[in-house]
Amino acid sequence: MADQEELKLYGFWVSPFSRRIELALNLKGVSYEYIEEDLSNKSPSLLKYNPVHKKIPVLVHNGKPVAESLVILEYIDETWKNNPILPQDPHERAMARFWASFIENKILATASKIGLCKGEEKEVVILEFSEQMKMLEQQLNGKDFFGGDKIGFVDIVGIVVAFWFQINEEVLGGDVYTSEKFPGLFKWIGKLQEIDLVNKCRPPREKHLAFMLSLENVKRQI
Amino acid sequence: MADQEELKLYGFWVSPFSRRIELALNLKGVSYEYIEEDLSNKSPSLLKYNPVHKKIPVLVHNGKPVAESLVILEYIDETWKNNPILPQDPHERAMARFWASFIENKILATASKIGLCKGEEKEVVILEFSEQMKMLEQQLNGKDFFGGDKIGFVDIVGIVVAFWFQINEEVLGGDVYTSEKFPGLFKWIGKLQEIDLVNKCRPPREKHLAFMLSLENVKRQI
Repeated sequence: MADQEELKLYGFWVSPFSRRIELALNLKGVSYEYIEEDLSNKSPSLLKYNPVHKKIPVLVHNGKPVAESLVILEYIDETWKNNPILPQDPHERAMARFWASFIENKILATASKIGLCKGEEKEVVILEFSEQMKMLEQQLNGKDFFGGDKIGFVDIVGIVVAFWFQINEEVLGGDVYTSEKFPGLFKWIGKLQEIDLVNKCRPPREKHLAFMLSLENVKRQI
Repeated sequence: MADQEELKLYGFWVSPFSRRIELALNLKGVSYEYIEEDLSNKSPSLLKYNPVHKKIPVLVHNGKPVAESLVILEYIDETWKNNPILPQDPHERAMARFWASFIENKILATASKIGLCKGEEKEVVILEFSEQMKMLEQQLNGKDFFGGDKIGFVDIVGIVVAFWFQINEEVLGGDVYTSEKFPGLFKWIGKLQEIDLVNKCRPPREKHLAFMLSLENVKRQI
């Protein structure tokens, strides 16, 4: 990065959305200043840079903010062209965007419903979640990564599936998401864990688990 | 388009999502075969080409399908490079994607709630809708189009705001969306209506209104 460039990332350590951006910037080898936000008392800078959603992550490049993780990932790939995140072929790019959107708008929406419902309704949601995860798994189709032989757009967007879902299941005590049910996805998780930058850019497992357990503990008392 | 190329669009005449694709292809000057789907009895081709969502629009280019309107628009812009839909500058591209996503994931979600709730809850939803629409309107900031002096990505995604919302309001008898409340957006709608291709690619107003009235009429009887 040239000396005159200024790059700041507003994030939260346990958020998969800002972790995606950290991972992309690290894969590009771009240096940046990281600003940890207190989500219960957001900084005036965050509110200024993302007045619409008032959420992390926000990437501020030479004073210009970009919000929303999928939009930021595209911005990073277009600004720093080394180590491409998206494929080059237009149809492959479309497929990557399609499956990223599937994770973001379908799988995450269904996953968030699991903890909110009970009984028969919960079974229906779990079935829907499992079907969506199977569809995602099929896209691996023997490859190491969704991007082929190296990590790409869908893998980066998918870190939430790779590392957050297991923690949530441990906290909630479910058996929806296991290596027996999704061997392909768990093989992919193994491949991700072989990449140092991936491990560097995700929350430390025990600290992540302890944080989610304490949140759940508070939730159960109110 | 070269002779050997085959381009098919599966759509539905009253859907703003497939109309977006028609508009983009027409702005590019790309010829295609249009296939009208019967949404109550979807064709085996549609189900084959979009097995995940089973929805229109699907664009099939030389046998390869692309689904989801925002993904298709990006595909079109990357495949046919004349008359760009997205700006060239990475930050302007990010802004266009941000506001397209805002229309798709925020404004449409809020708008769809208005008809579903009543009383105080409805007032809260209408207030939220109005605030979101004001934020969108501010992006015009004196320009003719969201894309500046010519139609672009946000304008194409926004045809649903320009032409569908008025029809829905006429059907439901509301006064949420008026030129008094949103003078900037209505000026933009006027500019869109000066473009022949925009008028060609949207449903004829009276036919559209009659269709929505008949749907509402059925809904009230069940």
